[in-house]
Amino acid sequence: MNEREVIARLRRIATDPAARGLADDAALLDGLVITHDTIAEGVHFLRFDPPASVGWKLVAVNLSDLAAKGATPRAALLSMSVGDVDWDELFLGGIEAACESYGLSLIGGDTIALPEGAPRVLGMTAIGLAGPRTPARSGGKPGDRLWLVGTLGDSAAGLAQLLGDPKATGPLVDHYRRPVPLLAAGHALTAHANASMDVSDGLLLDLSRLCAASGCGAEVDLGALPLSRAFVAERGQGRAARLFAATGGDDYALLAAVPPEADALSLSLPSGTKIAPIGRLVKRHGIALSHGGKPVPLPATLGFEHGGI
Amino acid sequence: MNEREVIARLRRIATDPAARGLADDAALLDGLVITHDTIAEGVHFLRFDPPASVGWKLVAVNLSDLAAKGATPRAALLSMSVGDVDWDELFLGGIEAACESYGLSLIGGDTIALPEGAPRVLGMTAIGLAGPRTPARSGGKPGDRLWLVGTLGDSAAGLAQLLGDPKATGPLVDHYRRPVPLLAAGHALTAHANASMDVSDGLLLDLSRLCAASGCGAEVDLGALPLSRAFVAERGQGRAARLFAATGGDDYALLAAVPPEADALSLSLPSGTKIAPIGRLVKRHGIALSHGGKPVPLPATLGFEHGGI
Repeated sequence: MNEREVIARLRRIATDPAARGLADDAALLDGLVITHDTIAEGVHFLRFDPPASVGWKLVAVNLSDLAAKGATPRAALLSMSVGDVDWDELFLGGIEAACESYGLSLIGGDTIALPEGAPRVLGMTAIGLAGPRTPARSGGKPGDRLWLVGTLGDSAAGLAQLLGDPKATGPLVDHYRRPVPLLAAGHALTAHANASMDVSDGLLLDLSRLCAASGCGAEVDLGALPLSRAFVAERGQGRAARLFAATGGDDYALLAAVPPEADALSLSLPSGTKIAPIGRLVKRHGIALSHGGKPVPLPATLGFEHGGI
Repeated sequence: MNEREVIARLRRIATDPAARGLADDAALLDGLVITHDTIAEGVHFLRFDPPASVGWKLVAVNLSDLAAKGATPRAALLSMSVGDVDWDELFLGGIEAACESYGLSLIGGDTIALPEGAPRVLGMTAIGLAGPRTPARSGGKPGDRLWLVGTLGDSAAGLAQLLGDPKATGPLVDHYRRPVPLLAAGHALTAHANASMDVSDGLLLDLSRLCAASGCGAEVDLGALPLSRAFVAERGQGRAARLFAATGGDDYALLAAVPPEADALSLSLPSGTKIAPIGRLVKRHGIALSHGGKPVPLPATLGFEHGGI
C-alpha cells in the first residue's frame, strides 16, 4: 500500500459528508472548518531551520487551509514531540507569535517524548468558523476562470538557496520559513468561487487535484503566473523558471475557480492583494500548459507529494 | 525545558477559556469537546503489537477522554505516518473497526512519510458533542466521594506479560491492546460529578492532577480499588498488587468526584457497570493512602508520565 492506496483506503472509511471525501483542504462540520497538518524534521523542515520559524510555519500551513475555505481562525490543538530544551522553547515562541498574529487560540493537544534520535514530529489541528460560503475543491465548472492570489516559486527558490548554503538569507528564504496565510483574500475569494484550495504542494499538482475533484480539466498560461521580484532576480522569468514556480510547492498561495462574469474588481479583495488570472477550467480532462500562445509539455513532476488527506 | 516546563510554557500561550488551562482531558469549545492524543512506536505501543490493535487503541484513548467529559463521539481527524504496506492496511482496519463501534466519523487528517527507520507516530483529534454537563478536573470539592468506573492494573499487567513473552495472550493483554472507552458510564457520571477525568497514566498520578486542579487533597483506600479476576489471578490482591494497579497506567477507567449525597444507584449507570467508591477529596493537600485502615506510604512513582496536555 503506497500513500495513494492509504488515502484510497481512508476514503472508504471517511463516508461522513463532513469529510468531503477527504478530497478537500479541510472538513466542514456543523459550521466549523477543521484541518490537520503534521510536519516532520527532514521531510517538511530542515534540521537547521530556526525552531521559531518551524513553529510559525506549522501554524501558517494550517491557517492557509482555513484561508482557502474562507474560514476565520478560532482555535488549535498542538501535538509536539519534546526533548531539547532550547529548541522547544524557541519553537513555542514561533507558535505563540503566529497564534497572536492571526487570533488563533491554542486550546489543547499532546506532548510526547520520542525515542532518542527520532526526527521531530509536530502536528496541529486548526479549527475555523466557516464563512457564508465554503467552496469545496469539487465545485469547479468548465468555463470558470482560474485566479491565483499570491506568488509562486518563492519558497522553493528559498529552499534551494538554503540547501546550497544553510546560512542563506533574504526574501525567498523568509517565504520558505515564514509563509503568510492569505486569510483576508480567502474571505473575499470564497464569496464568489465555485472551487478553491491553497497551493501547498505545487500549482500543477494542486490544480490537477482540483480538476480531478471537479471532473474537468484546465488550461494554464505559464506567462500569467505571478512571480515576485525576488524570484525573478534569482531565477529569471523564462520558461524554466516558470515551470519551477509552477511545481515548487510550499507556496501557500490561493487558487480559485470563479465564474467568468466575476472580475478582479468584483472580488472585493483587500487592497494590495496580488491576484492574477492564470487560466480556466475546460471540459477536456488533463492540464494543458501554454506559454506565449504555444503549447508546453507538462513536466514529469507536477509538485511535491508529501501526503495530505 | 523538560516536559513539565514545556507544558507550563504552553499554558501561558493557552489563555482562551476553551483551553481550560490545559489542565483537562479535553477542550470545550462552543458545545464541542475536543481532544488530541499522539502515540509513538516504542513509547506508547510496542513494535510487535498487532497493527489493528494500535489503530483500535488510538481511537479508544481519544474516546476515553470524551467519555470522561460525558461527550458523544462525533468526528475525528487522523495523522498517520505511512510506509509499510501491510502494517498500514491492518492499522486502518483497526481504526475503522473502532470508528464503527463508537459511531465516530473520520473526517480528515494528514498522512506523512517519515525518514527511513523513524518510529511510527500516529495522532488523532477527536471531537465530541458536549452533554448537559462537562465537568472539568478542577471542580472537585473537599467532601466529594471518589468513584472509579472500570478496573485498574489490567493493562499494566498485560504489558508486563508481553514484555516477558511477546506471544502472551489473554484478557490482560487484550485490555492493554484493545481498551474500551467507557462512554455510557461517562454520560451517567458526568450528570452528577463535580470533577471527572479518565485514568490513563496511573490512578495516583491522575488523581494528583485532579487534586492539583481542584486545589485539594484526597484519601484513597487501596483495599477498595476495583481489580478484575484476571488481574487477581495473575498478581494477587495484596498490597504490592494494589500499588501496582494504582500506578500502572493505560487503564482508561473513569474517575469522578461526586457530592456525597449521590450514591451508586442515583448515578443511573448502565447495568453491569463496575463502579467502586475508592476514597474522598479532603482539604489537606496531597494523597493519603490507606489499606485495611492503616496508612500506606505513597510510592515514589505515581504513574507513567508520557506527556499529555
